[in-house]
Amino acid sequence: MEKKTLKTPFFSIGVDLMGGETSPEELLEKISSHFNSQKDFKLCFLGPSSLASHLPLSPSLSWVTADDYISLEENPLVAIRHKKKASLVIGMKLVAEGKLDGFVSSGNTGALLALARRYCPLLPEIQRPALMVLLPTRKKPVAILDVGANLSLQPDHFIQFAKIGIAYQKSRGIENPTLGLLNIGAEEKKGTPDRRQAYLKLQELNSISTHPLFLGNVEAKDIFKGVVDVLVTDGFSGNIFLKTAEGLGAHILEILREAIGKEPLFKPLLSLGHQWDWEKYPGAILAGIEKLVVKCHSYGGAHSFIHSLHQMNLLLHSQFIDRLKQSLS
Amino acid sequence: MEKKTLKTPFFSIGVDLMGGETSPEELLEKISSHFNSQKDFKLCFLGPSSLASHLPLSPSLSWVTADDYISLEENPLVAIRHKKKASLVIGMKLVAEGKLDGFVSSGNTGALLALARRYCPLLPEIQRPALMVLLPTRKKPVAILDVGANLSLQPDHFIQFAKIGIAYQKSRGIENPTLGLLNIGAEEKKGTPDRRQAYLKLQELNSISTHPLFLGNVEAKDIFKGVVDVLVTDGFSGNIFLKTAEGLGAHILEILREAIGKEPLFKPLLSLGHQWDWEKYPGAILAGIEKLVVKCHSYGGAHSFIHSLHQMNLLLHSQFIDRLKQSLS
Repeated sequence: MEKKTLKTPFFSIGVDLMGGETSPEELLEKISSHFNSQKDFKLCFLGPSSLASHLPLSPSLSWVTADDYISLEENPLVAIRHKKKASLVIGMKLVAEGKLDGFVSSGNTGALLALARRYCPLLPEIQRPALMVLLPTRKKPVAILDVGANLSLQPDHFIQFAKIGIAYQKSRGIENPTLGLLNIGAEEKKGTPDRRQAYLKLQELNSISTHPLFLGNVEAKDIFKGVVDVLVTDGFSGNIFLKTAEGLGAHILEILREAIGKEPLFKPLLSLGHQWDWEKYPGAILAGIEKLVVKCHSYGGAHSFIHSLHQMNLLLHSQFIDRLKQSLS
Repeated sequence: MEKKTLKTPFFSIGVDLMGGETSPEELLEKISSHFNSQKDFKLCFLGPSSLASHLPLSPSLSWVTADDYISLEENPLVAIRHKKKASLVIGMKLVAEGKLDGFVSSGNTGALLALARRYCPLLPEIQRPALMVLLPTRKKPVAILDVGANLSLQPDHFIQFAKIGIAYQKSRGIENPTLGLLNIGAEEKKGTPDRRQAYLKLQELNSISTHPLFLGNVEAKDIFKGVVDVLVTDGFSGNIFLKTAEGLGAHILEILREAIGKEPLFKPLLSLGHQWDWEKYPGAILAGIEKLVVKCHSYGGAHSFIHSLHQMNLLLHSQFIDRLKQSLS
């Protein structure tokens, strides 16, 4: 394993070039050219030795060779056991050992989660990590978790995810974040028995809060109105929610682009359309572990990585993980 | 119970004015003025006696008094047992007895389902009804079920819903409808154990079909591309999907309207925006029973009823239920 110096006075973030749907060549070229001249943080690319020579010479870019990768179709537990040289395995180990300050990948979610559970300590009182995204709404961004890490949850997990989301919004400067439970109706008794139990558990948070914290069930249609700061749900429905929004956003952007192509007068509207281009949003934070790991969609291209890296740099500078740890303990 | 003649050579569709979020007055006024002069079908409004005198005189409009209603918050089973004079109970009985050819309501979904199960025979080989909507996509409308009737399903139910959806698309003239399973990834092993079992069951449909029918898992983001004609899922995730699309559609339409307000040159784009105004789409068909019942969203206004009534008239003329019955038996 060739490894250039990782220690610098700046933060160093690992970039997994493999395992997603975009080619390592394209990712390396676009991400390195975007960050080539910046001095805010260091990037450490993880990719095949055949690509190492493509790395531009720059004090802010470094390289770690990983000659294997885990594909999206592979069984996560089998893959992480056998593929010790996969970029995902090496990257997660480096971040766990503190040799990287953060790590971003668009690879196999199950493998990423399994590696996180194996190598990274969980934050206090957290039993499982969750994938968390920040989504723009009419009023203010909402932190949504879980968007895909845990397909089913116990009521206690909802509480833990709520605490992570609230701590995250507080770290973003929101003084009294409000909380909602994604459900198929606003009424208290809506949803599956599990969800009704979660509702009751979340209600208990109000008794230990100085402000109205848990506002109850929120329907998917109301999220975009910005009714809550934090939305908790299981990873299955959270993933359906997120990908529906992405799919419709992309669909509408495409129609808008076509209309603009036919009528240049509409061009100023393109900037409106860009806000629904979720592919350009940062990936999901793997929240609940003591390390900063971000998961981009497997189909997320270089833009998604670039936005994630900017977001991660801000989180590192604000000592996000330490603050999250303090607020949970 | 006052009851004007229901028997005519035309189809007669019942309209539940109560139990949703729009006032019976507003629904009656808008729906009756829209259909006042049409002669395609008869409407029979179900509402409180205080409103009966507001019914315009017209051979196509009739009235059934229902002086009670089931609210959205009520326990469905308790409500249908005690509220014999609720509009939902009377309407569902009239449609079950064949005195109405169809019935549309924006009331309590659970109560509507329970009444359907109590009074309406199920179609052959169907164990549970599902709520089905037709959603526009880039290519062609997709029939999605279940969008809210059953929060959890057995693998066999997925097969039954698939058969209903396919029969529905065939009745719309689609020769070889294709089928997908809503999931959080396209790979075969994705999702909960239940969903993986459903996947295997749905695959069996291909062996008895003359064309590639089941195309596998479909991610929410790909639905709007129009990749399948029928999408099956459980009522929880289907409801999250539908309401996310509605919420984002409304959000985008609002932003577009504001932009048009500031810049009249953009006005032609409003017609594009209207296609994301899901509130104007017909409600969901309660599919799987021998009667034609449509459920509008509780927040669905008169427009939603009007579109539903036009859709129901077409379905009645095409003998939708009979054809569905034949194709299932």
